[in-house]
Amino acid sequence: MPGKFYNLHDLSQGHLRHLAEGMEARIFAGEKAMLSVLRVAPNAVGEVHHHPEEQWGVLLEGSGVRIQGGEEYPVSAGDFWWTPKNVLHGFRAGGEGAFLIDIFSPPRGDYELAGRGFAAKLGEAD
Amino acid sequence: MPGKFYNLHDLSQGHLRHLAEGMEARIFAGEKAMLSVLRVAPNAVGEVHHHPEEQWGVLLEGSGVRIQGGEEYPVSAGDFWWTPKNVLHGFRAGGEGAFLIDIFSPPRGDYELAGRGFAAKLGEAD
Repeated sequence: MPGKFYNLHDLSQGHLRHLAEGMEARIFAGEKAMLSVLRVAPNAVGEVHHHPEEQWGVLLEGSGVRIQGGEEYPVSAGDFWWTPKNVLHGFRAGGEGAFLIDIFSPPRGDYELAGRGFAAKLGEAD
Repeated sequence: MPGKFYNLHDLSQGHLRHLAEGMEARIFAGEKAMLSVLRVAPNAVGEVHHHPEEQWGVLLEGSGVRIQGGEEYPVSAGDFWWTPKNVLHGFRAGGEGAFLIDIFSPPRGDYELAGRGFAAKLGEAD
């Protein structure tokens, strides 16, 4: 099959990763880019971290606060953002939770398999 | 500013590209990946073409038929797909049109600036 087809709401697809309490991602890896379909429970918090891969985020539903480079940006459905490599970032969901797509390029090797957690945290070595 | 923030529905953002009759894209370039926010008019047709960049597509609203590798796949809101580099692909919108995000990695050099058209068509040299 020349490529693959998925659906954002099919929980049987992708590799499951538990990023944090109330943050469940399904990971879909290409060769150059990786998609993470992320559901965030109301008021759940994704701690600030960083990684060498470039990241884009697209907020499809809900709202929250994107923490990026030490600043806080309120975001709501339809907002999207570019996070350059190695920039510290995190997310706090609003009261109705959030549904996002994160895009990583290159694909994050530590996300290739099912598992738990983000990447390097603030203060850890690169 | 450590990164950039946008909204899918803000038509003042990104570089405008007219891909085909009834297919208007707004292009947002990162270093490793590029997003194209694409609005397709009802029944508009994006001809089959290919390019060396990997592509992902996420159908946010509407429906259509994704043509990929010589096969046709009916798609509706919430479907997304991976298109490996150099695979022939195209799109026909359904009667209510379609609103998509295309993701290219690496960024497509020919999309970096405002302009018209897709890339190489079926039968053209790579």
